[in-house]
Amino acid sequence: MPQTLTTDAKGVYAIAATPFLEDGSIDFESIDTLVEFYLSHGVHGITVLGMMGEAPKLTGSESLAVAERFIRRVAGRVPVVVGASASGFAPMAELSKAVMDMGAAGIMVAPAAYVRGDAAIHRYFEGVMASVDRGTPVVVQDFPQATGVHMSPSAYVRLADEFPSIVMLKHEDCPGLDKITTIRATARRRTSLLVGNGALYYVQELERGADGAMTGFAYVEMLVRVHDLFSRGERQQAEDLFDIYLPLVRFEQQPGFGLAVRKEVLARRGAIANATQRRPAIPFSATDRQQLDGLVERLHRRLS
Amino acid sequence: MPQTLTTDAKGVYAIAATPFLEDGSIDFESIDTLVEFYLSHGVHGITVLGMMGEAPKLTGSESLAVAERFIRRVAGRVPVVVGASASGFAPMAELSKAVMDMGAAGIMVAPAAYVRGDAAIHRYFEGVMASVDRGTPVVVQDFPQATGVHMSPSAYVRLADEFPSIVMLKHEDCPGLDKITTIRATARRRTSLLVGNGALYYVQELERGADGAMTGFAYVEMLVRVHDLFSRGERQQAEDLFDIYLPLVRFEQQPGFGLAVRKEVLARRGAIANATQRRPAIPFSATDRQQLDGLVERLHRRLS
Amino acid sequence: MPQTLTTDAKGVYAIAATPFLEDGSIDFESIDTLVEFYLSHGVHGITVLGMMGEAPKLTGSESLAVAERFIRRVAGRVPVVVGASASGFAPMAELSKAVMDMGAAGIMVAPAAYVRGDAAIHRYFEGVMASVDRGTPVVVQDFPQATGVHMSPSAYVRLADEFPSIVMLKHEDCPGLDKITTIRATARRRTSLLVGNGALYYVQELERGADGAMTGFAYVEMLVRVHDLFSRGERQQAEDLFDIYLPLVRFEQQPGFGLAVRKEVLARRGAIANATQRRPAIPFSATDRQQLDGLVERLHRRLS
Amino acid sequence: MPQTLTTDAKGVYAIAATPFLEDGSIDFESIDTLVEFYLSHGVHGITVLGMMGEAPKLTGSESLAVAERFIRRVAGRVPVVVGASASGFAPMAELSKAVMDMGAAGIMVAPAAYVRGDAAIHRYFEGVMASVDRGTPVVVQDFPQATGVHMSPSAYVRLADEFPSIVMLKHEDCPGLDKITTIRATARRRTSLLVGNGALYYVQELERGADGAMTGFAYVEMLVRVHDLFSRGERQQAEDLFDIYLPLVRFEQQPGFGLAVRKEVLARRGAIANATQRRPAIPFSATDRQQLDGLVERLHRRLS
Repeated sequence: MPQTLTTDAKGVYAIAATPFLEDGSIDFESIDTLVEFYLSHGVHGITVLGMMGEAPKLTGSESLAVAERFIRRVAGRVPVVVGASASGFAPMAELSKAVMDMGAAGIMVAPAAYVRGDAAIHRYFEGVMASVDRGTPVVVQDFPQATGVHMSPSAYVRLADEFPSIVMLKHEDCPGLDKITTIRATARRRTSLLVGNGALYYVQELERGADGAMTGFAYVEMLVRVHDLFSRGERQQAEDLFDIYLPLVRFEQQPGFGLAVRKEVLARRGAIANATQRRPAIPFSATDRQQLDGLVERLHRRLS
Repeated sequence: MPQTLTTDAKGVYAIAATPFLEDGSIDFESIDTLVEFYLSHGVHGITVLGMMGEAPKLTGSESLAVAERFIRRVAGRVPVVVGASASGFAPMAELSKAVMDMGAAGIMVAPAAYVRGDAAIHRYFEGVMASVDRGTPVVVQDFPQATGVHMSPSAYVRLADEFPSIVMLKHEDCPGLDKITTIRATARRRTSLLVGNGALYYVQELERGADGAMTGFAYVEMLVRVHDLFSRGERQQAEDLFDIYLPLVRFEQQPGFGLAVRKEVLARRGAIANATQRRPAIPFSATDRQQLDGLVERLHRRLS
Repeated sequence: MPQTLTTDAKGVYAIAATPFLEDGSIDFESIDTLVEFYLSHGVHGITVLGMMGEAPKLTGSESLAVAERFIRRVAGRVPVVVGASASGFAPMAELSKAVMDMGAAGIMVAPAAYVRGDAAIHRYFEGVMASVDRGTPVVVQDFPQATGVHMSPSAYVRLADEFPSIVMLKHEDCPGLDKITTIRATARRRTSLLVGNGALYYVQELERGADGAMTGFAYVEMLVRVHDLFSRGERQQAEDLFDIYLPLVRFEQQPGFGLAVRKEVLARRGAIANATQRRPAIPFSATDRQQLDGLVERLHRRLS
Repeated sequence: MPQTLTTDAKGVYAIAATPFLEDGSIDFESIDTLVEFYLSHGVHGITVLGMMGEAPKLTGSESLAVAERFIRRVAGRVPVVVGASASGFAPMAELSKAVMDMGAAGIMVAPAAYVRGDAAIHRYFEGVMASVDRGTPVVVQDFPQATGVHMSPSAYVRLADEFPSIVMLKHEDCPGLDKITTIRATARRRTSLLVGNGALYYVQELERGADGAMTGFAYVEMLVRVHDLFSRGERQQAEDLFDIYLPLVRFEQQPGFGLAVRKEVLARRGAIANATQRRPAIPFSATDRQQLDGLVERLHRRLS
């Protein structure tokens, strides 16, 4: 049975890569292996058609086919969130309806790039609410580096207050630690808050009240275990583990380059058949590969 | 028989609005009246699915349906250019193939927003050329205010040089007068160059070598007549006529607001049934309407 | 006796160019002629060290010398506002104190480029107020195209409410007509509001409650007479006059190019000895000059 | 005797903080202790009046006084580079001349924020060269996150080629690893290349041909020792050491927040008397302090 996203969501939601065959066509079988990879590592949810999932490079029908394959394979084991940001509310509503019918747990929406100021952000989400089916759980994505839209903490607090179907903030403002603290301190209605940005400040973010991470770091088991350790009160052990992976977290976190690293690692680990990106693709040079090799080797040494 | 866009294109290509019924659904009958409106005023081409045509607010199937209705109604009387900018080459190629099969004369492509620097712009258009069907005529749209991408004159000259299927530059950099002069002076292969930005500097642009305008100013007859006058060497008359409309050109040219004005005027003139925009829509207040009334009244007085 | 800027300020405040000799040194005698030029055309105030005045190209001591020469020459005939935007409050306070001691009527401050969101804007102006001498009249400059800072109408209303020394908004958001309407409708304390951006929508802005213009258009007499006509209720005559100059207003309003036009016109009119800009200078080509010639000729024809 | 910056510069150039007393006035004695702190840790150079040094918050005379105190205290033991970026060439030249006369080893210049495209960047540095005294060693700062200016690798290669007084690239594009590789592979004239951005990818950058780092990380001894280890071919040991500090490097590297962390650490370590920033200051909350405490404690544990 499909799951529904609620304000209780916590843990790790993997931003799923979209796997392609070498010729650039969608690799549906790798969707299945990727789902099993994520689930075997204990993720609490999966997010598809995110910016990092190369969603904008899919045609409309491909987007639906990809979402459907993910949702079917997951088969209700964890919630599946679908990225539905769009320039207009009509395509957003169309996609939203389609994926909710397929069994998605909710949609994720970032404000359009031209929205300026908290009042305009509020009006924008009023429009979202009026456009998608009533009751569709919504994740607000706050990602100014990508959208250019600055959302103040009070703007999110007000959104969460007025729209009960907003169940989660995907937080990826940077610097953004204080934003978590402020939102937690001032919210009248508590929603889930998962951090993005590769979880570069993961333990500090958990300490400030984040409920986990929604990001695509390819060693997803670290995100899960750190969350577990932290939840059990083993804060130092959580950070010890995190720090072992930090050199790679940082390498993957290079804006507009990380996706290439991430797919490389996923392919090496057998989660997807190959690292192909659709065009326009981020270049990944022989030197990049060598340096990734070096970092992975060092990781294995530290883990052994 | 469908027309093909060539480097000889000149005159006025109307950026067509996308008409909606009051409930926000597509108003196909107004597409027909809008086509006849444009053609009755002597436009030399029509561009559909442009940024000003609210293309991003259409679903995938709606985009195709809108393009098809325009192309069918035009029925080869003038070339129809279709906006095909997209974040990925797969959806761009899909749309491009579909509309060329319908009888479009060419496609228009702006570089994606993350492209930085002339070398990256070149690689981007290499990817476009490799993705769309060989021989598809391409208009390069240079619109930094919307895309954030700065393209130097030499970058366009090199594109035109290397890719024979690039037939036109849609120029809307601002300030951009000198860019026209430089491109005309340094190009090895002459392409068409039409100006956008509401043709706010139309006569000055024609003087510098522009072949006309591709823009959505609702009094399209002015654009056509100014082009005619200028082509016949009647430069002062051309500018006299332009100046009469300048107060409205300027009013419509407010970035991110002009579309509302434009649809209002088109609806008043009977070109479309009503001025409805899809959501998210640009607000148009009672005061805005009053001021538009005043400007239109003044225009009529000066024309009479 | 020096004048003080108050919330009653209205009319035209000329943003003064900074004149240079051909070798790039400051042309103090042209400051005198420029002041007389502005005053002879009836301006109600003069603003110096604005962005358009090439203030950032002056050394610290030159800035003071230029401000002093302007203030001395004006000699209390009209208020002189001094641009004091700075990255830090210490240099802002230093300049502010110096020019107020010289007899400036007030200072103009735009928020620093990194300020994001209304709450941060408010904190920024709290800092300004704590830094400059108590009682110094402050003009808030809202110029998002230059600063990248979006200020919502309610943010200005709150500033005006809390800080009695804020006496004026220099409005140059674009599109910004609705912003004037909203501020006038919601303000609890009425301040002066002068428009910038070359006064491209001057009559429409006056209709919405602007008190005049603070801009650098070189035919300043038009700005003054339009304001006079409008104030006497002769709205159509005001707009008739404005429209005659509109082709030039628009030509001068090209962002990042207009200063070159402006200095050319001021030099031709004898207001300053020559059009030299300091480096880095905006190029002004032979074609630019020709087109300016044409526009000026057309203006004279329409005025005669 | 003052040192001169050359293309052979390597190692670690500390971006010096500007110390303030609690009342916000300059703490000259802390300049002395800070210099000794940096030198005791083996830095190869010191950079003053950088963006991170709160240079824009100083008045003109303060800037000179700060630079002078640093240069005097260093007393030729290492080169002192002075940040001289300015909106105009006149103030840049004035500052440049003054500090070179004091004994600075060179100046550092980033292109102004409005410069767009490689051709314009080239013209900009032509202007810089024509403005500052012939022979003044120049560091080109490539910091797009702060300036908004994208400089392609070939643009820097051409600058280095044409202007012999350009001796160094301060590289802080991100992602920027490939840029180092490309510049090293294509440069006709080898200049020094030091990385900024907190040296977040330090070992990977050294591997690609960086000569060291110019950054403000408060545990500067790590930067020095990693450079030493790497230079002696002990690559793994270099990265082992780096990784121990990485959690703090990352914490300090939060854009627009790191300065607060950095000053806190410098004050705790006795390098400066207190962590005061000038206004507008970056907030540093009790929670921020706690998390910094935690990270410092963890560092000490790992080092012991």
